[in-house]
Amino acid sequence: MSESAHVPAEAQALAQRVAAAMYERDRASRSLGMRIAWVAPGEADLAMTVREDMVNGHAICHGGLVFTLADSAFAYACNSHNLATVASGCTIEFLAPSHLGDVLTATARERAQVGRSGVYDVEVRNQHGATIALFRGKSTRIKGHVV
Amino acid sequence: MSESAHVPAEAQALAQRVAAAMYERDRASRSLGMRIAWVAPGEADLAMTVREDMVNGHAICHGGLVFTLADSAFAYACNSHNLATVASGCTIEFLAPSHLGDVLTATARERAQVGRSGVYDVEVRNQHGATIALFRGKSTRIKGHVV
Amino acid sequence: MSESAHVPAEAQALAQRVAAAMYERDRASRSLGMRIAWVAPGEADLAMTVREDMVNGHAICHGGLVFTLADSAFAYACNSHNLATVASGCTIEFLAPSHLGDVLTATARERAQVGRSGVYDVEVRNQHGATIALFRGKSTRIKGHVV
Amino acid sequence: MSESAHVPAEAQALAQRVAAAMYERDRASRSLGMRIAWVAPGEADLAMTVREDMVNGHAICHGGLVFTLADSAFAYACNSHNLATVASGCTIEFLAPSHLGDVLTATARERAQVGRSGVYDVEVRNQHGATIALFRGKSTRIKGHVV
Repeated sequence: MSESAHVPAEAQALAQRVAAAMYERDRASRSLGMRIAWVAPGEADLAMTVREDMVNGHAICHGGLVFTLADSAFAYACNSHNLATVASGCTIEFLAPSHLGDVLTATARERAQVGRSGVYDVEVRNQHGATIALFRGKSTRIKGHVV
Repeated sequence: MSESAHVPAEAQALAQRVAAAMYERDRASRSLGMRIAWVAPGEADLAMTVREDMVNGHAICHGGLVFTLADSAFAYACNSHNLATVASGCTIEFLAPSHLGDVLTATARERAQVGRSGVYDVEVRNQHGATIALFRGKSTRIKGHVV
Repeated sequence: MSESAHVPAEAQALAQRVAAAMYERDRASRSLGMRIAWVAPGEADLAMTVREDMVNGHAICHGGLVFTLADSAFAYACNSHNLATVASGCTIEFLAPSHLGDVLTATARERAQVGRSGVYDVEVRNQHGATIALFRGKSTRIKGHVV
Repeated sequence: MSESAHVPAEAQALAQRVAAAMYERDRASRSLGMRIAWVAPGEADLAMTVREDMVNGHAICHGGLVFTLADSAFAYACNSHNLATVASGCTIEFLAPSHLGDVLTATARERAQVGRSGVYDVEVRNQHGATIALFRGKSTRIKGHVV
């Protein structure tokens, strides 16, 4: 995992502890079957399989659930420094449909952090590597810590 | 329902038939407990109660599911003319948290339609009338009809 | 001006004083020939004529300058309460081109104010009333006053 | 210029011809003093110096003109394949102010192209390399060619 090569071990361990604590409480993401595939300071990858209860009559996944996967990855990434952070707003561009049985992965990366405000970019890809959606999240740090 | 006072009866009947057909196929919105509270040409109101499987450890609803409610209302509104339409992109601003047991209503209204592209504004409010989120959806008409 | 019917005279007078002070310092908006057509608490309308130095070879106005007009209207509206406020982010949807000689009007209205964050909607229309663009601005209050 | 190492010479030459033709007609960008610093298929970098007629009373550049620089870079990048393309919508996050005399550079890169729709990311930095704004543009191809 070359991406974490330069991350101090303490920061990495903290990111993992924060993610574990969030996941424990995060009934919504767990109900949707999301798994944490990767976490590091300012980064998180989450995976979700498109289930029967996520699609319409054409077996296409509801765009809102693609957004929800991206939004969860964003939340894990922006809280990874253990400074409590919430989403203030998000944008999403839908590029391709996803279908029943697809395995979607959302890759969230910190793009900027200025004062209490951050910008995170999230890309959602399917199991073939095709980009399904591009998401951008704006975060605001509030008082408190995650763990 | 004064809002439909000037809507021709045929257009209104078509909007209702389209919504019924979409809802029948729309397993995702039904799985989340959404109900159609209102539909008219270019308009739709959907309601959803925040359930235990939608919240985090602080009993706050996942922002992705607030988005999903707004996105569904947008979909019913922009397909109400029976011209098959998909979302190309959306933005959402989160203004206040919603909690376990809250009844959220998303009110979608057509703001513009130019050629095949449309813009819809959706407001999500809770049972006290407080605004939870402001959503804006961009739609694109594709070939075909809904019913 | 029925829109200000319920605005206390003091708040209205303050909004006008703030706008006058901002305009005095606002070389950018004045260089682009913008005029303040209306101001009230949470509201501002600005007008701009599309000049030769604003267009491309097809005599179509640069989208960035349409944005700039909307952004100025947003700034006057969100500072109208005399609490210093800056833009944190904006979205714009371009619906129709505008042409050399067109007189554009941007109408900014407050949609939400929660704590230090606000959301403003701006519509840009031409002299025929056609909608050119829909803009949404997110504002953040900082320390200090305008006047 | 390592970035163009794998670009076929013909595509690169076409991108440069398109940019030259656009710039010739683009009175708005030239009036604002923008220079094309780099162009390649799907890419463009534009620079602009913040002038006295672009600032407010605190010598801070109008956000609309930062947007305009980003929007121009986006336009040059998305037309670089010589397929006529227009902006359908954009988002911008303002991260830091820019000041009188600053030299801003907007770096536009293609992120996705699906059918007639594209997504471009633009970063605006100042002469010290600090990020001023993050912009995302959605493009739509129309009929015709640039040159």
